Amino acid sequence: MINGEKLISRPLRWAMVGGGRTGQVGYKHRTGALRDGNYQLVAGAFDLDAERGRDFGVNLGVAAERCYADYKALIAGETTREDGVDVVSIATPNFTHYEITKACLEAGLHVICEKPLFFTVAECEEVARLAEQKGLIVGVTYGFTGHPLVHQMAAMVKKGMLGDIRIVDLQYTHGFNAGDDVGAGEAVKWRTNPRTAGPTFVLGDIGTHLYYLSEVVLPHMKVERLLCDRKAFIPTRAPLEDHATVLMHYDNGARGRLWVSSVNAGNMGSQRYRFVGSKASLEWSDSHPDQLIYEVQGEPGRIMHHGMPYLEQESLAIDRMGALHTEGLGDSWSNIYLWIAQAIDAANRNDQAFLKTHHYPGITAGTEGVRWLENCVRSADAGAAWVDFA
Amino acid sequence: MINGEKLISRPLRWAMVGGGRTGQVGYKHRTGALRDGNYQLVAGAFDLDAERGRDFGVNLGVAAERCYADYKALIAGETTREDGVDVVSIATPNFTHYEITKACLEAGLHVICEKPLFFTVAECEEVARLAEQKGLIVGVTYGFTGHPLVHQMAAMVKKGMLGDIRIVDLQYTHGFNAGDDVGAGEAVKWRTNPRTAGPTFVLGDIGTHLYYLSEVVLPHMKVERLLCDRKAFIPTRAPLEDHATVLMHYDNGARGRLWVSSVNAGNMGSQRYRFVGSKASLEWSDSHPDQLIYEVQGEPGRIMHHGMPYLEQESLAIDRMGALHTEGLGDSWSNIYLWIAQAIDAANRNDQAFLKTHHYPGITAGTEGVRWLENCVRSADAGAAWVDFA
Amino acid sequence: MINGEKLISRPLRWAMVGGGRTGQVGYKHRTGALRDGNYQLVAGAFDLDAERGRDFGVNLGVAAERCYADYKALIAGETTREDGVDVVSIATPNFTHYEITKACLEAGLHVICEKPLFFTVAECEEVARLAEQKGLIVGVTYGFTGHPLVHQMAAMVKKGMLGDIRIVDLQYTHGFNAGDDVGAGEAVKWRTNPRTAGPTFVLGDIGTHLYYLSEVVLPHMKVERLLCDRKAFIPTRAPLEDHATVLMHYDNGARGRLWVSSVNAGNMGSQRYRFVGSKASLEWSDSHPDQLIYEVQGEPGRIMHHGMPYLEQESLAIDRMGALHTEGLGDSWSNIYLWIAQAIDAANRNDQAFLKTHHYPGITAGTEGVRWLENCVRSADAGAAWVDFA
Amino acid sequence: MINGEKLISRPLRWAMVGGGRTGQVGYKHRTGALRDGNYQLVAGAFDLDAERGRDFGVNLGVAAERCYADYKALIAGETTREDGVDVVSIATPNFTHYEITKACLEAGLHVICEKPLFFTVAECEEVARLAEQKGLIVGVTYGFTGHPLVHQMAAMVKKGMLGDIRIVDLQYTHGFNAGDDVGAGEAVKWRTNPRTAGPTFVLGDIGTHLYYLSEVVLPHMKVERLLCDRKAFIPTRAPLEDHATVLMHYDNGARGRLWVSSVNAGNMGSQRYRFVGSKASLEWSDSHPDQLIYEVQGEPGRIMHHGMPYLEQESLAIDRMGALHTEGLGDSWSNIYLWIAQAIDAANRNDQAFLKTHHYPGITAGTEGVRWLENCVRSADAGAAWVDFA
Repeated sequence: MINGEKLISRPLRWAMVGGGRTGQVGYKHRTGALRDGNYQLVAGAFDLDAERGRDFGVNLGVAAERCYADYKALIAGETTREDGVDVVSIATPNFTHYEITKACLEAGLHVICEKPLFFTVAECEEVARLAEQKGLIVGVTYGFTGHPLVHQMAAMVKKGMLGDIRIVDLQYTHGFNAGDDVGAGEAVKWRTNPRTAGPTFVLGDIGTHLYYLSEVVLPHMKVERLLCDRKAFIPTRAPLEDHATVLMHYDNGARGRLWVSSVNAGNMGSQRYRFVGSKASLEWSDSHPDQLIYEVQGEPGRIMHHGMPYLEQESLAIDRMGALHTEGLGDSWSNIYLWIAQAIDAANRNDQAFLKTHHYPGITAGTEGVRWLENCVRSADAGAAWVDFA
Repeated sequence: MINGEKLISRPLRWAMVGGGRTGQVGYKHRTGALRDGNYQLVAGAFDLDAERGRDFGVNLGVAAERCYADYKALIAGETTREDGVDVVSIATPNFTHYEITKACLEAGLHVICEKPLFFTVAECEEVARLAEQKGLIVGVTYGFTGHPLVHQMAAMVKKGMLGDIRIVDLQYTHGFNAGDDVGAGEAVKWRTNPRTAGPTFVLGDIGTHLYYLSEVVLPHMKVERLLCDRKAFIPTRAPLEDHATVLMHYDNGARGRLWVSSVNAGNMGSQRYRFVGSKASLEWSDSHPDQLIYEVQGEPGRIMHHGMPYLEQESLAIDRMGALHTEGLGDSWSNIYLWIAQAIDAANRNDQAFLKTHHYPGITAGTEGVRWLENCVRSADAGAAWVDFA
Repeated sequence: MINGEKLISRPLRWAMVGGGRTGQVGYKHRTGALRDGNYQLVAGAFDLDAERGRDFGVNLGVAAERCYADYKALIAGETTREDGVDVVSIATPNFTHYEITKACLEAGLHVICEKPLFFTVAECEEVARLAEQKGLIVGVTYGFTGHPLVHQMAAMVKKGMLGDIRIVDLQYTHGFNAGDDVGAGEAVKWRTNPRTAGPTFVLGDIGTHLYYLSEVVLPHMKVERLLCDRKAFIPTRAPLEDHATVLMHYDNGARGRLWVSSVNAGNMGSQRYRFVGSKASLEWSDSHPDQLIYEVQGEPGRIMHHGMPYLEQESLAIDRMGALHTEGLGDSWSNIYLWIAQAIDAANRNDQAFLKTHHYPGITAGTEGVRWLENCVRSADAGAAWVDFA
Repeated sequence: MINGEKLISRPLRWAMVGGGRTGQVGYKHRTGALRDGNYQLVAGAFDLDAERGRDFGVNLGVAAERCYADYKALIAGETTREDGVDVVSIATPNFTHYEITKACLEAGLHVICEKPLFFTVAECEEVARLAEQKGLIVGVTYGFTGHPLVHQMAAMVKKGMLGDIRIVDLQYTHGFNAGDDVGAGEAVKWRTNPRTAGPTFVLGDIGTHLYYLSEVVLPHMKVERLLCDRKAFIPTRAPLEDHATVLMHYDNGARGRLWVSSVNAGNMGSQRYRFVGSKASLEWSDSHPDQLIYEVQGEPGRIMHHGMPYLEQESLAIDRMGALHTEGLGDSWSNIYLWIAQAIDAANRNDQAFLKTHHYPGITAGTEGVRWLENCVRSADAGAAWVDFA
């Protein structure tokens, strides 16, 4: 159980790029990073509007002189300080991830970046090489995968409690974009424009969460072929999609089906995962994250609750609130931020042994997400045809 | 509200072929048919074992001499009686549907048949012509579509309460065949053998329910293209499938996704329907059939209950138990049997005007189900390729 | 599993008093009685309006001459026929139950009566003596207690799977009487008038269902003391109540809490039963009657489904639809009607051995319900004071 | 929406008494207090074992010399420092609350204390006078009442959306004490001993949460009479209770029923609140805290989600994660800690105007909880008799 005791050598000095007052994403980073004392927010380039960004940063407790106009100024300013930041979180539109990440790494700073990481696998691989060469960490904020019951699922699959995995059913849909985008805010605008969003809208925005979480639960399985059928029900979003179905064939013969949509009118909280094995199934939804449904064929269905002693150690070790007490998305983010902090701490100490076995969403996870998107787009562009996963 | 008052000229004299003591399906027919006095069970060929069938029939209150050894004897015996049966229900394995139906129709008897109706569209069309020529009815027992909330959905779609339909999400899965078929009973054996089951297993056995119900709710939409990816996780079932995903493109641009499986280990009652429009969505599951979820984007989700005054007249008119009082699958079957009785009654009176507007699952519904299966198989056999719906 | 095969010597000739076109309750009796061929509806006095009653009866298939103006005419007419009815169901307002029941019994007819049975225990005991003397059955339509999972609960309690029972939590509430009764229909008017309803409104109307079902599950436990706090939120209903809480102390030290209300605004389907033992609990609601929640302390909660092989034989034996296929309230009524038919059949054969062990809601169950109501009223009238159960 | 921007003049210097490594409660305080930068944990007396407490404190980032052996040393040490703490949180067994609170207040320190606050109302009132005299704040950690949907309920009641409140149904039960206490840990031992727990076990431990939350939602209603029936199913816990039912009559004629139990075997997360008005009802459970059920009689039930624009401003203003993203108990605690911080900040600035309208669980809330417990015990000791609320 995590209780706030320190798990790293010293708190990391931390800056944010983006995540300012006008958006919602910044607070998720801060509430995830700050509750345990692993990060100290000491600098930032929070906003395209430098004045507003400074005001905001000061309100967060950052010294005015460490509230920068942009990421370049931040890097310049911080790398010349004795007490400069260790790590920078990037919570900006997709099209800026690559250049900011590269600049930070080149300046010797660790990076924590929003998903989808970059536009292309080639960019990811270039950055991966750079990070490795510099001995730096790139974390990716797959924020839902810190939940104790996600790791309960992984542990149960690993122990063989499901038998052979046969079916993977993934869904992340909502209806917030059911209407058209006339008068929509900035967050919608950049996400539906290929120049700023990259080659996908909902596939990248929410589908990568599904894909990464399935990798965490099923690390032994690989996609061999997939088919992606995508569509923009609001035509102005084309060629990007507001709805897509992806079929996947895994190397062990399993079948996957994935649904992402932001035009599923009225739908709330339907991020749903179902893993079906030859003996039993697991089902988890982030809308009731404290419950895990475990169904053995021929037996009564079981509802497992987070924090209960019957869970696997892998799950109990990362529980924060204890049984009966709900954990929310912020608790999950705080585990993600913790694990990345541990990676950074190990990298700072050059503890390669630790890094070899330590699990966190890093550059590989980010790359695999982009690779999956590339395959989806390739299939969709070929007329929703089957493609070999490459 | 249906309260048992007669809706047809006189009770129909009714026989069953199949539906004997060793299976479960027969009681569904009887409990659906008998509660309102629209049918009188007066004859039957209930069992391949004639002795056991007679004993069973007598126990159901059928005169011993009207418990026949097989359907041929039944037709021969009943058509020579003054008080011979009007209609025969066929609750036998798929491969017998076609020949028994034809024989009944040729003998002047109406038919009520299990789904999937026959093996091929050609057979369906031949039978349709025969029925029309004889002025006889062929009903098909899509047993779930009698529920009041199914018709609530249809009425709401018709009134435009969902806007334009964009997404159709259909699922009927269970896990009863998660294990292999060694030692399995007769019901599993014939369903997994192409000779007796026809070209599909779960697509025909449960998928046709999904497809027909979606036709009831969305009568204005047609499938233009589809792709079917099917698989037998238990290899002895091949070439039939125990799992399939079907993607559908509708003529109005909507996208459909359908999942059928009998290896979804531990899954109970997940027949789920979701219809997503540009304004709102509807979701219904037969596992909690008294509730309908209606979600307007941007408003709190709504839970509608059967029998409540706020429902549409189309739904209230076919309610049996009233609000607060659960209806089960048997109540739904009793509506289906009622509607078929009304069709038979009208046919007997040659009331073409009534028949023109009367809604019930008949030969057209049965044919469309088989057509959909043919398209699914064609796609699957082409390597899960897109095919134009033909 | 019940499949419609006969379980009694011959179908019973059956009449209804009340249950006509203007109410909802009559169909519940008919749909419960008629689906299995245990009853033949051949006579009735369906309506205070004799003409309307005759028209209705004929529509149900009853011969016009056996549609009587009132119960006296029915008894007179039927007892002089060779093929007169065996049994009469009484679906009239509470204040008529006693006189109609007595008249039927005196005429040698079995009775099936709505709850609450009569106004006083004295009346119940008088009728019990009369029935015993005549060798006749009085059944009481506690319609929810025919559900297979109710008997699953009883079997699990009996086997000790819950340990010692500690807490009994019972709730049956709805909001249909949240508004005042200006312009209310007949059904509300007679239920809120002490002259026609007897000494209670919701306690008798819905509370007796809770109490009887708890007796079925916990036959070994007796109430020793109780306290009833009742209130009419709509003042015109006083001295009757539209809301009550009853606390109960059982002879084994268990504690009971019961809530009935018809002013629980917006509440649908919350008939809920929870039985808590020293080891485990059971929870069942008639709004999702196909699921039973079984919770062992320290283990994942379990969801049991009707019709599944892991259930006790007592439950499987009375299942009608089979696993995956929902049962509704009508299916439960049909079991109640079956069990009463078996009692009548045994009484007709004077099979005392059968009657000694046969379980059905009879005169004892009806009497105990009225006794409980008397105790509730005595407590409430004493200012919601504790009273010894008498 | 709360996004981490500062809402007080400066971060508060904060110490904890109790809340060490061996219990779960301490982390709830820390995760609630630390995420927004309103508190800096700079001192503590975390553990009865001074050595272990120091090790723990250092691990939390507290300087070793500010990890004290006990609360007296903490007060002595901190009040002599220039940068001494502003406020002390007390997360120790009940019997110590009073003396530690008094000592802190006398030393000029604000206090945040666990519930139930003290043993008697007299103690509460004495402390209230002391706090007022000193101009200091006493906050009480009713941790569930920070959730946005709790305040949505309060706002809806205030606007009259429910009509007149008629029924209040409160439940907080679990089964963690279903077994006996042989070998139980410290947390159970002190809670079941009157010397250390005070006059109640579950009534104080979990029932006060129910009572305070109902006060937040229904500030206009007062309890006039109550009846408490309590019992120790595990006899060694007597005279304290592990199960109790409380009936309440409110001054507006409403009826309340409350259930607390720690022997509700297998029950998880059933903290449930239902507020029934003449027009509509609200229902909320902390086990699915992101959903609020709003039921208007005669309309479909509505499910409201936190963070959605259709909510009242009172709710949206305190949302942290935004729609679709679950909030957990920690988020609720962080609002409670924020509101107490704002009170302390205002007290430090002697901003009486702010304090007059600022809402947070303070000494009054704590006192009312203890008053309610006193009334419950008085009733229970009189044989579960009605008592006038005093």
